[in-house]
Amino acid sequence: MTDELAADAAPAPRGGRLSRRALFGGAAASAGVVAGVAAGVTVVQAGHAGAATADRIVDFRGTRQAGIVTPVQDRLHFASFDVITDSRTELVNLLKRWTAAAERMTRGQETVDGGATGHGRYLPPPDTGEALGLSPSSLTLTIGFGPSLFGPTPAAPGRKDRFGLAKHRPEALTELPAFAKDALETSRSDGDLCIQACADDPQVAVHAIRNLARMGFGVVSVRWSQLGFGRTSSTSRSQQTPRNMFGFKDGTANLTAEQADLLDRWVWVAPEDNPAEAQWLTGGSYLVARRIRMDIEPWDRAALSEQEAIIGRSKGDGAPLGKDKEFDKPDFVVTSSGSPVIPKTAHVRLAHPDNLGGVQILRRGYNFTDGSDGFGHLDAGLFFLAYCRNAQNQFVPMQRALATKDAMMEYITHTGSALYACPPGLGADDWWGQRLFEA
Amino acid sequence: MTDELAADAAPAPRGGRLSRRALFGGAAASAGVVAGVAAGVTVVQAGHAGAATADRIVDFRGTRQAGIVTPVQDRLHFASFDVITDSRTELVNLLKRWTAAAERMTRGQETVDGGATGHGRYLPPPDTGEALGLSPSSLTLTIGFGPSLFGPTPAAPGRKDRFGLAKHRPEALTELPAFAKDALETSRSDGDLCIQACADDPQVAVHAIRNLARMGFGVVSVRWSQLGFGRTSSTSRSQQTPRNMFGFKDGTANLTAEQADLLDRWVWVAPEDNPAEAQWLTGGSYLVARRIRMDIEPWDRAALSEQEAIIGRSKGDGAPLGKDKEFDKPDFVVTSSGSPVIPKTAHVRLAHPDNLGGVQILRRGYNFTDGSDGFGHLDAGLFFLAYCRNAQNQFVPMQRALATKDAMMEYITHTGSALYACPPGLGADDWWGQRLFEA
Repeated sequence: MTDELAADAAPAPRGGRLSRRALFGGAAASAGVVAGVAAGVTVVQAGHAGAATADRIVDFRGTRQAGIVTPVQDRLHFASFDVITDSRTELVNLLKRWTAAAERMTRGQETVDGGATGHGRYLPPPDTGEALGLSPSSLTLTIGFGPSLFGPTPAAPGRKDRFGLAKHRPEALTELPAFAKDALETSRSDGDLCIQACADDPQVAVHAIRNLARMGFGVVSVRWSQLGFGRTSSTSRSQQTPRNMFGFKDGTANLTAEQADLLDRWVWVAPEDNPAEAQWLTGGSYLVARRIRMDIEPWDRAALSEQEAIIGRSKGDGAPLGKDKEFDKPDFVVTSSGSPVIPKTAHVRLAHPDNLGGVQILRRGYNFTDGSDGFGHLDAGLFFLAYCRNAQNQFVPMQRALATKDAMMEYITHTGSALYACPPGLGADDWWGQRLFEA
Repeated sequence: MTDELAADAAPAPRGGRLSRRALFGGAAASAGVVAGVAAGVTVVQAGHAGAATADRIVDFRGTRQAGIVTPVQDRLHFASFDVITDSRTELVNLLKRWTAAAERMTRGQETVDGGATGHGRYLPPPDTGEALGLSPSSLTLTIGFGPSLFGPTPAAPGRKDRFGLAKHRPEALTELPAFAKDALETSRSDGDLCIQACADDPQVAVHAIRNLARMGFGVVSVRWSQLGFGRTSSTSRSQQTPRNMFGFKDGTANLTAEQADLLDRWVWVAPEDNPAEAQWLTGGSYLVARRIRMDIEPWDRAALSEQEAIIGRSKGDGAPLGKDKEFDKPDFVVTSSGSPVIPKTAHVRLAHPDNLGGVQILRRGYNFTDGSDGFGHLDAGLFFLAYCRNAQNQFVPMQRALATKDAMMEYITHTGSALYACPPGLGADDWWGQRLFEA
């Protein structure tokens, strides 16, 4: 390939060559469509669902935040932040700046126009540049607010209300209770704010978190972050059910974007859920994050029959035990030789709505592998993410049942935990958290 | 989507439904072509370079090991192992079993036929199953042997020769010297063996390493492992130059697969390089692995002019300073106001062959982000991988120059280091390391 060809073949949207930078103003990138110009060729990529995922733009604004029912992208970078200032003004200003940068990045643009190279040679560039030339990659950025941002909670009654938000704390936004066998690490738990970055290219997700973290210098500090390399859930019927690190199809019975009635019932916070002071969350959702280390080496030494009895599904096709196909409804009653075909301790039984008073959640987790653990084992597992209308009424009873009865607990350890309230989507000029801070 | 459609749309090669498992024997998967059968539809995917990368099969066998000059895949899982047995027989048996499983996995198959579900309900399945239904994803698996496998070296003269390999150690296969500013962690350095898994789907790379690690139970133990989320090098002229976490195009002047003469000179070990006892390595290469933490927060506060002076290239298009295009040859002589346009401490100058007596290497590194460091910063950087004909004569002088003179050293810390000798490619019935163990 000649030098010319090498330059001309660049995919386009984000900045790129200095001589082209001026072309990438706001006008060239209206919501849902990005226009890139490479050596005279105009590339227009529409953000419709049928496009190749790598080139898709997911709308940043809308009734709901993107990244909740959006078909789960392949890669994740999740960051939890501590707010390190006591100044409400500084925090609000950051949220405004974050919003503008986040919206631009979801369009495949730099944090600000010409961010990587166009702000003068004698200043630090406002965009770090590693996503230059990469496509929008379906990037979504979803914000959530943790209980600690709101000052005192039942679990921390003495915590200072630094930002005057205590009266706006929804009652359900309080620290999750301890569960049996929890082995939570402080350095992997909680946080005042979170940002979930999902994209089909991990470099796009990492670039987004890194640049938002950087913009927050002096206001927020990264408390913990987690990369996920592969989705373990589907949030749309158009997606195949992926496999977790136990080799099983996971989250087959997940809620999906197509089930509007069930989403209203189990995912979106409704007006009647909160008093007037906490109406800012109406239309939003709670996000539960749990880092679940899987003890994969002992699991790998378990017989297939034990693995399937623990999960309650066949490993090959994911069908509930006693059934033929993945999406067949599990039969919790049928017995064989006097024992239930799906054991009483099976994960699929304990997590099933039928056995939790109908409770459902929207799962959006990712497989992770964080190197090795120093004992010759891979540090791998599931970074569980779930959205629900009320975590205390949905996730908590589910996890109580699983933590005490689920046979899988022998092979997993919960090492991190956090809860956030994610506000509804953004209108035309809204900024992240505006409804809360202007409530 | 109906249940039928959900089942039928599965991508195919790896196992899947129990009823189809018997169809995936060795005959159906000759080198370079895989045949999958989904609901009566035969899917044949050719492994030629023009195919969509996600579906490609890279030949496991050949003159060279795959994964060296193979166009760099997007994702990496790299594992270094300690051999925990003193039995040469156990180690050889593992290498034979590894070879068979590795070849199968590069074809998109389970470690053994029907590995995930077809070996009886009362045994642990020999394949962990999380790659069922995923495509071959251009998976390459590349093996290397560390100095410690060969017993005593100049750096460790008292080390036991557990496997009777001391006389076969190439002289250049000895621990790298300490470099200025090294901050190496034992838990991220060295190892008796390594396996580099590169693929376009990270779950495929992780599955491969995990299953090989698992097969090694009792024989090897994972010493350390590293995930890389995005390539930072090109090894083919058909690839765009990617960007590192400093936001710069990296490795523009890398050797590529098309440069056969230069590869013979700088990458492949030649007969004259070693005495008869170490001829097993002829046609192979040395692999240097360095985990380079990038201090991205201070970097991000540096002015563009400083960043560009440190790298010696423009950030936007990657052109050498004073030039117009990425692939223009840097001019190290030209001055402006009496100073060199490319500073004397610039990375591109110090690492350039012209300033290292012509020395070149084949770079194959990956960007990484391993969560946060507990101080509010992302633990991110470059996992540097480079292949060369003689690391002591190529990497060592290059790194000596960089460690003492490179302005970039202010922003990076080398936290891990290892050296391995990677044997040549495998003939029809060869197993990993056969030439060494039968030498």
